[in-house]
Amino acid sequence: LSKVLLTGASGFVGSHAIDPLLRAGHEVHAVSRSPRADGEVRWHSLDLHDRDAVLDLLARVRPELLMHMAWYAEPGAFWAAEENLDWVGATLRLLRCFRDCGGRRAVLAGTCAEYEWGPASTLCSELHTPLRPATLYGTAKLATNQVAVAYAREHDLELAWGRIFFLYGPGEQPQRLLPSVARNLLAGRPAPTTNGMQVRDLMHVRDVAGGFVALLDSSVIGSVNIASGEGIELRNLIDLVAHASGHPELLRLGALPQRPGEPEAIVADVERLRREVGFAPSVALQRGVAETVSWWRSQNDRSRS
Amino acid sequence: LSKVLLTGASGFVGSHAIDPLLRAGHEVHAVSRSPRADGEVRWHSLDLHDRDAVLDLLARVRPELLMHMAWYAEPGAFWAAEENLDWVGATLRLLRCFRDCGGRRAVLAGTCAEYEWGPASTLCSELHTPLRPATLYGTAKLATNQVAVAYAREHDLELAWGRIFFLYGPGEQPQRLLPSVARNLLAGRPAPTTNGMQVRDLMHVRDVAGGFVALLDSSVIGSVNIASGEGIELRNLIDLVAHASGHPELLRLGALPQRPGEPEAIVADVERLRREVGFAPSVALQRGVAETVSWWRSQNDRSRS
Repeated sequence: LSKVLLTGASGFVGSHAIDPLLRAGHEVHAVSRSPRADGEVRWHSLDLHDRDAVLDLLARVRPELLMHMAWYAEPGAFWAAEENLDWVGATLRLLRCFRDCGGRRAVLAGTCAEYEWGPASTLCSELHTPLRPATLYGTAKLATNQVAVAYAREHDLELAWGRIFFLYGPGEQPQRLLPSVARNLLAGRPAPTTNGMQVRDLMHVRDVAGGFVALLDSSVIGSVNIASGEGIELRNLIDLVAHASGHPELLRLGALPQRPGEPEAIVADVERLRREVGFAPSVALQRGVAETVSWWRSQNDRSRS
Repeated sequence: LSKVLLTGASGFVGSHAIDPLLRAGHEVHAVSRSPRADGEVRWHSLDLHDRDAVLDLLARVRPELLMHMAWYAEPGAFWAAEENLDWVGATLRLLRCFRDCGGRRAVLAGTCAEYEWGPASTLCSELHTPLRPATLYGTAKLATNQVAVAYAREHDLELAWGRIFFLYGPGEQPQRLLPSVARNLLAGRPAPTTNGMQVRDLMHVRDVAGGFVALLDSSVIGSVNIASGEGIELRNLIDLVAHASGHPELLRLGALPQRPGEPEAIVADVERLRREVGFAPSVALQRGVAETVSWWRSQNDRSRS
């Protein structure tokens, strides 16, 4: 039984990581600004920007493992927000306190936005794709990665970095693509979208969280893409959502313009995840979408009752 | 008259930047953990790791210009120290507060350790040399640079980054090469050194500070090497120190081993500094060394009296 400190435990991926961590036999210490009550998990209320509070908690809990999922994630705004600067500092501070308090192995959340987004035909590979982020968010994550890796090498810490691609599932922020389409259609309103020609690597949030837990429990170090390895056109996703929501006729594919500079295709090379970590996703897209739309329907029912 | 906030104002380069900033007509707000009293300069006591205190000071002073020279600088230890992580966070926090409080242009201190140190024949060029730091210190500085540049681009801030090479002059930390040789010889003790075959780009600290002030007062953005552009073998420097100190016979050149992995040559391309910033150093090496040794002699005299 080893102690894991999980940050971002109320967030989209973090909240789905609790179950697999418990199943793997860990003692889970979940960190959040707004902790829940839960018998099996020890919740800690913590602002990761409060330097003294971070050190206090780490010194008290003394976890051997760290899974750091917290970051600024306001939909749309996170790409360019100045909060990215604070999260670089908070992450490096957390990592230092973790190690100074006896931490042994850390897994941190990175992003496909660290890669140069090149021609549609190439997969994003941890070994071969240039790291040349186009956004402040990607730059801040990559900078954190590089300092964390150099620090781990000098200070006897095992460090792995999971790069998240595109994900969906219950609990996603309502402004994002799948929820906005699902919620409009479930309410009988038209759902305007782009033409959906973009090819993306999509993974169910439960598989993303499972991939991170598998990475934590492995001895792999360095960067690992946490993704499906399969590119699908977003209009296929949108179509599945429309059918699961029951109002495909209200879908307005192409009513919104593409975001300028939007890359054609972003798909992961998943050799490291499959072979070295030994993890493969288990939620098929059609089933995952159906389940997610059901979840949004239940949220709607709950908010009406 | 524009307000400049100068951090690291008690440090090696920072302390030499005060005079040129005043001469250029700026209102100088000097920040240090241990401020001095000085009529012309407004000193502020500040711990840059104290997030609230940083915002308070910036909101009160509201400087238009920032010259950020503070960083962890313990001789020898700074290459791998975990304090580097804290300074990434503190620097990004400072930059964000500066801009949020009306800041317009910032100049930050970088390092030649951000470059890949390649074959002896190539100059370190801002445009052409790969950025591939070999140390935690260089990695932390480069990461700060990259996030700062991306932030400045998104948030309407002018940002320049001065890369410091090798420097010497009054006030250098006594454990470092020139002071250790000078102090041994001035005290009539033997001075052991390496063979001094390493070629380095050396600049007097007054010129380094002057180069930073010139960069601040220019409109150049991006990275600029603050260096002489000339490589000299360290044994030439050591020789000058030995003769100025009056005991060349006590010099033990070659008595110490080279640090493993020490690069043969590190010399800057200074085209940007000369042409775009319009700055050239004014202290010749021989005169600079003689002056510095005199300063150490006066320190010795003072500590004896």
